[in-house]
Amino acid sequence: MAPPHLSFLTDFGLDTAPATCRGVIWSICPDARINDLTHTARAFAVRDAAFLLWSSVPYLPVGVHLAVVDPGVGTARRPIAIRAARGDRFVGPDNGLLVPAAERLGGIAAVHELSNRRLWRDEVSSTFHGRDLFAPVAAHLANGTDIAEVGAAVDPATLVRIAFPEPTVDDGRLETSVLFVDAFGNVRLAGQPSDLAALRGHLEKGDRFTVTAGDVRVEVPWHPTFGAVTTGELLLYEDADYAGLAIGRNQGSAAEHLGLANDARVVVEPT
Amino acid sequence: MAPPHLSFLTDFGLDTAPATCRGVIWSICPDARINDLTHTARAFAVRDAAFLLWSSVPYLPVGVHLAVVDPGVGTARRPIAIRAARGDRFVGPDNGLLVPAAERLGGIAAVHELSNRRLWRDEVSSTFHGRDLFAPVAAHLANGTDIAEVGAAVDPATLVRIAFPEPTVDDGRLETSVLFVDAFGNVRLAGQPSDLAALRGHLEKGDRFTVTAGDVRVEVPWHPTFGAVTTGELLLYEDADYAGLAIGRNQGSAAEHLGLANDARVVVEPT
Amino acid sequence: MAPPHLSFLTDFGLDTAPATCRGVIWSICPDARINDLTHTARAFAVRDAAFLLWSSVPYLPVGVHLAVVDPGVGTARRPIAIRAARGDRFVGPDNGLLVPAAERLGGIAAVHELSNRRLWRDEVSSTFHGRDLFAPVAAHLANGTDIAEVGAAVDPATLVRIAFPEPTVDDGRLETSVLFVDAFGNVRLAGQPSDLAALRGHLEKGDRFTVTAGDVRVEVPWHPTFGAVTTGELLLYEDADYAGLAIGRNQGSAAEHLGLANDARVVVEPT
Repeated sequence: MAPPHLSFLTDFGLDTAPATCRGVIWSICPDARINDLTHTARAFAVRDAAFLLWSSVPYLPVGVHLAVVDPGVGTARRPIAIRAARGDRFVGPDNGLLVPAAERLGGIAAVHELSNRRLWRDEVSSTFHGRDLFAPVAAHLANGTDIAEVGAAVDPATLVRIAFPEPTVDDGRLETSVLFVDAFGNVRLAGQPSDLAALRGHLEKGDRFTVTAGDVRVEVPWHPTFGAVTTGELLLYEDADYAGLAIGRNQGSAAEHLGLANDARVVVEPT
Repeated sequence: MAPPHLSFLTDFGLDTAPATCRGVIWSICPDARINDLTHTARAFAVRDAAFLLWSSVPYLPVGVHLAVVDPGVGTARRPIAIRAARGDRFVGPDNGLLVPAAERLGGIAAVHELSNRRLWRDEVSSTFHGRDLFAPVAAHLANGTDIAEVGAAVDPATLVRIAFPEPTVDDGRLETSVLFVDAFGNVRLAGQPSDLAALRGHLEKGDRFTVTAGDVRVEVPWHPTFGAVTTGELLLYEDADYAGLAIGRNQGSAAEHLGLANDARVVVEPT
Repeated sequence: MAPPHLSFLTDFGLDTAPATCRGVIWSICPDARINDLTHTARAFAVRDAAFLLWSSVPYLPVGVHLAVVDPGVGTARRPIAIRAARGDRFVGPDNGLLVPAAERLGGIAAVHELSNRRLWRDEVSSTFHGRDLFAPVAAHLANGTDIAEVGAAVDPATLVRIAFPEPTVDDGRLETSVLFVDAFGNVRLAGQPSDLAALRGHLEKGDRFTVTAGDVRVEVPWHPTFGAVTTGELLLYEDADYAGLAIGRNQGSAAEHLGLANDARVVVEPT
């Protein structure tokens, strides 16, 4: 039988905080296969982390997903667990972080507020619920504890939700914004290749678009792969890591080249 | 039976050095559950690493703790293993790195100098004892090898010890210094919340203190959680990750805001 | 029986991309012991990654080595698997990345082009072959699938090969260049200590050399260990991590001190 898969995403950085959480998890569920999604999600940025979790979960085995980007730690925000239709269980704060990923796995089947303190560490601090509360609950779920044991059921309609930016296609142009910049400097835009296709009625290799970002205005072709443009050139492409429309640069950083960061406004028009 | 837990802390950075050590460990003890505490401890800073190890071990399962921040590699400094009263075994250089953590786990029960070369790699380099000497010994201990096998017993009184900075409470002020800045920019000060309480005779939510750091002088309230102050505001709080008094900033970096780094002097007085 | 060892090296950075690959691997081979070599290899730098893989594999258990630094993803470059004489199997792009490491493990015993789509993910993107193609094939190999199953045999002579820089010893001087700068700032030069010995006919502790790098000209002694020079001083030494001649600095960064980066030219002469 496969060991339980427990994915783990935080903004804790490269210090020891993720490791102390793993220590707590393995104390409870020694067999857990912990898959550290990332611990360098932008600090306090719930939306970034929600996007990363949403983009990752389809590629992970059914299991437990522990996600902690929690600027409201120690306040009244609820600690929750969500069961998705695929069978996965999510554990983290009720601040919108978990909802998009759970919806991507078939939808939210159940939500429970964490209130059963027998599944927590004996001492619970005010500033590190990741270690003291979320990690042990996730470990118990990985051990097979039923989600109903973690606390009372909650109406999914009461969950905090966050919105990802939405593009608009109007007047022959795509108005969008930067959703995420990855480690290579690829720029994931809100929207899909189909939004570009809608502008022209078709979308083919080499179709050219004008991209406006701040003071920068450049012509960028649509291509399926980086290698279709020469080194240093930009392209519009479908990003496979983050499931959507993106601007890349062959062997370089599109974000740096265009001066783009999260939330920056970008306009794309057929040339 | 749970697989043996082997924690691993270094200043090797994000290159391949930790992975080659893990390769050596898994060659000897294929079942080891390796928990990478951090590999970005400040380079050559034994005290930082000693503090991180001290702050982490209470949350880890009983096991083997391999820690290598070793500016004296290849010199006469002794390679050692320490058994703590809780049952954990520590492996690393005799430069003070291991002692505080071992003392936190019930005290030092035994110390052995690593001299049994049958537990080392066949070839031992002069500059990478982490891979050639410490990692294989740690793996053998994880496999169940008795600590007495690693080499002759050593008098614990002969161990190199390092001192963490100590605060002083005097003249109505707490004089302290920065022990550690975490990835969020939270500033762990030498001292405990009880030191603040000693200044006023009590310590309650919202109590205000004046913090002086270099040319900066600011008023900072005491609160149990970040969420008790508005975004961008400072607070004094009890840090759960690092077990002591700290200055934080709601959704920001206190260290950057106050221009603080390790060892900087900080004075805290009741306002 | 030991779980299969699967090492994993990329330039994907600290985002979620390595974790989605691990998710794919564990979906296919739940027992895989994944050893993340590094994911911060210099982006698009095939030679850097080839060097890191070459320097790491002797310390890893026999197993599967998945390496993806793949600026040509989605183009005609071949996806391949290589079996080395030691028994290891390498998986990655045919761009030179895998060859030096395979040769270091006894030589190339077989090469196969990945063409059996039954071993890939059902949907294969144009920009993330790491996740969709290389990771699942590596996982199947870790599960015991024979390398002949991945696709047709390929003549090893057709593999793309990259050259590491070679030093020259001539006119009483070693002309070399920087092969790699590690996280500490140690500078691995092309060449071996024997090249220094060739200049003088011998090589002993304390032998002094003049190092010229750009406008900088400094005298540097040869020593086996960092501790042989005082803090902040440079030394020439044999680097154990990266198996060759290097310039280090006791408790500091030689690269920063000398203004050196990859490929910079360095001349070493007996003083």
